[in-house]
Amino acid sequence: MNIEKVIASIRNVPDFPKPGVMFKDITTAIKKPEVLRFLADTLYEYYKDKGITKVVGVESRGFVLGSILAYKLNAGFVLLRKPGKLPAETYSYSYELEYGHDSLEIHKDAIDKGEIVLLHDDLLATGGSAHAALKLIKKFNPKEIYASFMLELEFLNGRQKLVDMENLADIHTLIQF
Amino acid sequence: MNIEKVIASIRNVPDFPKPGVMFKDITTAIKKPEVLRFLADTLYEYYKDKGITKVVGVESRGFVLGSILAYKLNAGFVLLRKPGKLPAETYSYSYELEYGHDSLEIHKDAIDKGEIVLLHDDLLATGGSAHAALKLIKKFNPKEIYASFMLELEFLNGRQKLVDMENLADIHTLIQF
Repeated sequence: MNIEKVIASIRNVPDFPKPGVMFKDITTAIKKPEVLRFLADTLYEYYKDKGITKVVGVESRGFVLGSILAYKLNAGFVLLRKPGKLPAETYSYSYELEYGHDSLEIHKDAIDKGEIVLLHDDLLATGGSAHAALKLIKKFNPKEIYASFMLELEFLNGRQKLVDMENLADIHTLIQF
Repeated sequence: MNIEKVIASIRNVPDFPKPGVMFKDITTAIKKPEVLRFLADTLYEYYKDKGITKVVGVESRGFVLGSILAYKLNAGFVLLRKPGKLPAETYSYSYELEYGHDSLEIHKDAIDKGEIVLLHDDLLATGGSAHAALKLIKKFNPKEIYASFMLELEFLNGRQKLVDMENLADIHTLIQF
């Protein structure tokens, strides 16, 4: 297994979720045991010596590799969810979409001050949700934040939205399109 | 770590998502590394000799332990999602809620005939979504199906909706309330 085989296992779906968009479908990748294992092991190798104590996964595809990483790193796993899904007190952060806006929420007791936090999502596109996620994580005064994405759509420049965040040690993407 | 400590780490949230419901919040459990590890390792011990080739997780809390289990069992991971989220051709199954209905979808190429499939979700309550999930998995003619839930609310009798399903080898729940 190698990164080229992972890329070949990702399905391109034209015009989803709307006309003109070529959707990168990772379900055809993670349904293969050898691809899922390679992805998790490769990310683990990258992060194993960073001292990470919490992994934060973005609903809902970010829960897949995020939770495996948390397990392997011996860290806790935290859910960053769409509005109204988390039952206790939350911090909320709104971000703009092409039409309208969306928001993300995190429980106020999810992270302790001084932790080293790894944010994981499957996709870095325009960076709107990633920026919101990092803003929410910063509220807890972590010692350091790492940001990990399986795929990066470089032509959308999402990385530019994140680079000037304080405490952000590193942005890492496995596959760039 | 033991099952009593896991239970003590689950937060009870009254009146969520509606008045009269006591919500079992697992976020306070899985944010603790030792609880996440115990849950995953205990489930892995139960399923490690069953020959499981695919784990199917139910959106979205079922993705957490489901994906760790897939990784540990050296199986593929499949997403069972809410309507409109999966980009390619799907099977869909509607089920009734107290008011109205909901449905779940799975990609038509998610599972091969003859596979041994483990369904995982965090909660077995009335059994509506679990029954829909099993109906969808049966469309692929698997050799056997196992059903795993972290929590079971026994007073809602969800298990009764599932027991007469063909090819269902076993229903296993870690914690019963």
